[in-house]
Amino acid sequence: MKKLINDPANVVTETLEGFSSAHADLVTVHLDPDYVVRADAPVQGKVGVVSGGGSGHEPLHAGFVGLGMLDAAVPGPVFTSPTPDPILEATKAVDGGAGVLHIVKNYTGDVLNFETAAEMAELEEITVRSVVVNDDVAVEDSTFTAGRRGVGGTVLVEKIAGAAAERGDDLDAVTAVAEKVIGQVRSMGVALTACTVPHAGKPSFDLGEDEIEIGIGIHGEPGRHRIPMAGADEITDRLLDPILADLEVDSGSVLLFVNGMGGTPESELYIVYRHARERLEQAGLTVARSLVGNYITSLEMQGCSITVLVLDDELTELWDAPVNTVALRRGV
Amino acid sequence: MKKLINDPANVVTETLEGFSSAHADLVTVHLDPDYVVRADAPVQGKVGVVSGGGSGHEPLHAGFVGLGMLDAAVPGPVFTSPTPDPILEATKAVDGGAGVLHIVKNYTGDVLNFETAAEMAELEEITVRSVVVNDDVAVEDSTFTAGRRGVGGTVLVEKIAGAAAERGDDLDAVTAVAEKVIGQVRSMGVALTACTVPHAGKPSFDLGEDEIEIGIGIHGEPGRHRIPMAGADEITDRLLDPILADLEVDSGSVLLFVNGMGGTPESELYIVYRHARERLEQAGLTVARSLVGNYITSLEMQGCSITVLVLDDELTELWDAPVNTVALRRGV
Repeated sequence: MKKLINDPANVVTETLEGFSSAHADLVTVHLDPDYVVRADAPVQGKVGVVSGGGSGHEPLHAGFVGLGMLDAAVPGPVFTSPTPDPILEATKAVDGGAGVLHIVKNYTGDVLNFETAAEMAELEEITVRSVVVNDDVAVEDSTFTAGRRGVGGTVLVEKIAGAAAERGDDLDAVTAVAEKVIGQVRSMGVALTACTVPHAGKPSFDLGEDEIEIGIGIHGEPGRHRIPMAGADEITDRLLDPILADLEVDSGSVLLFVNGMGGTPESELYIVYRHARERLEQAGLTVARSLVGNYITSLEMQGCSITVLVLDDELTELWDAPVNTVALRRGV
Repeated sequence: MKKLINDPANVVTETLEGFSSAHADLVTVHLDPDYVVRADAPVQGKVGVVSGGGSGHEPLHAGFVGLGMLDAAVPGPVFTSPTPDPILEATKAVDGGAGVLHIVKNYTGDVLNFETAAEMAELEEITVRSVVVNDDVAVEDSTFTAGRRGVGGTVLVEKIAGAAAERGDDLDAVTAVAEKVIGQVRSMGVALTACTVPHAGKPSFDLGEDEIEIGIGIHGEPGRHRIPMAGADEITDRLLDPILADLEVDSGSVLLFVNGMGGTPESELYIVYRHARERLEQAGLTVARSLVGNYITSLEMQGCSITVLVLDDELTELWDAPVNTVALRRGV
């Protein structure tokens, strides 16, 4: 295993220490328990938006803390859910009196621990709502999941719900717009290589020299099928076809998000984007907004995911709203 | 070779096609010859700032085209200099009557082809100045270089010279500030793995399972020495010591830039940043500004580079100035 780390046990703490000193203008990092809040938290009268989950998917979630997106992020150990305790602390730290929305990716541990934290927060008189993101069309149930997994769509839910909270929507309205995004977003990913969890020291799974995994999960969970290495356009088709079949739209505007898994050059993401866009346009859709880059990763895994969100005027306006985070910055 | 590409011969064109449609709000992409200009080029009365070089280092340079940074980028084939022709076309396309600055990384092919393009532009009555970035302290001469190589410092030269041009400085002043950055910036990199050029189909060099290359170039050119895999703090010391020895500063403010080579998780970059920052502070320096992420890459290479720029009030102000590009966006 070759990684730029010291003791594998300290990976998350040392990452957060570096992140904290590099971005003190935007965020405040708390250690033990670990959580990251925007520098001006709590914002009085504003709905707090909190997400979290296992580490190893950076910039998700800490990179999305700031004006117009998350109020707090709760990073667990690598590929492991945070416990209820830091989720509760983060929830309390960002409660500005208007309630808090938890955005949870659909993994059993995350769902359970966010639920427990929400119950504990209610005991402290904080109103909490939760939404569960489950945009991955690859498989129905999976290693760590009952139902579909939450993947790339999470980034879009965080951006759009965060914008709704920032403009002053109340907790019901922020929750409703998050649910709307979840209802209209679908994703699927591919792995060209496996990734290695630091404390495990060896790759999470084996992929042959000439083999790729279609429908991979963000922790290396099995996908739909393994196929021989193919051209980018063919791989793109194999990701997009199930998304389009599931969305059942044939007109209107969409946001196309091509996400790198962490170890893939940006140039390759644009090659995938190019064909995905052509395909969407052939299907009668207008690609009105785009996002291309590493936003929800699996350590150093090579591969990508494609996410399509069906837009309407409200979602487009919230997508375009100002955002000021480490990983996404616009209009400020 | 596993890559998300179609025909290796079309990698640059298909990347640019994807980039063009994803970012039409910011840039205009010309194909054959290939160059990228900001959407509102030429800006009348403003100095044009142009850079370029081999592809495979994305987001450099096309990701830095836009308000407050580059007016044009000229991408060559992967790891290969662009010819004079597209450099000339880009220079003409961004000439707003105040002259054009060429920012050139110190590689023999780049220097030669930008020189030829500048001479051709002068024949068309465009005043061109050139600066050559040579911030890599690892080696004096190298495979493609007489003198030091241009690496991470290039990003900072482009940002700061771009800001000077944007605020209305004339060609002499923009050139002078670019030269000042070049005089005060130093870098060094490490490779944990090699990268594979698409049309070559095999890794550019061989690194043992337990071996890393200290002082690597951005095209996989040899560095200073190979050592056994070590901890992040020790590797960081081996990059930072030569930088500090060369800069000879022991007080004042610096910008610390930890750059990913393309295949390294963001978390590892923050672990390197953490220790580099501690070391700079121990050396009496204040880390006043920071940049962490993949900004000048070597395809899917795992590794990073560290860049230190000695700041003064002028450079800090220009660093902080608004910028609106695909890869760097702030204050707009």
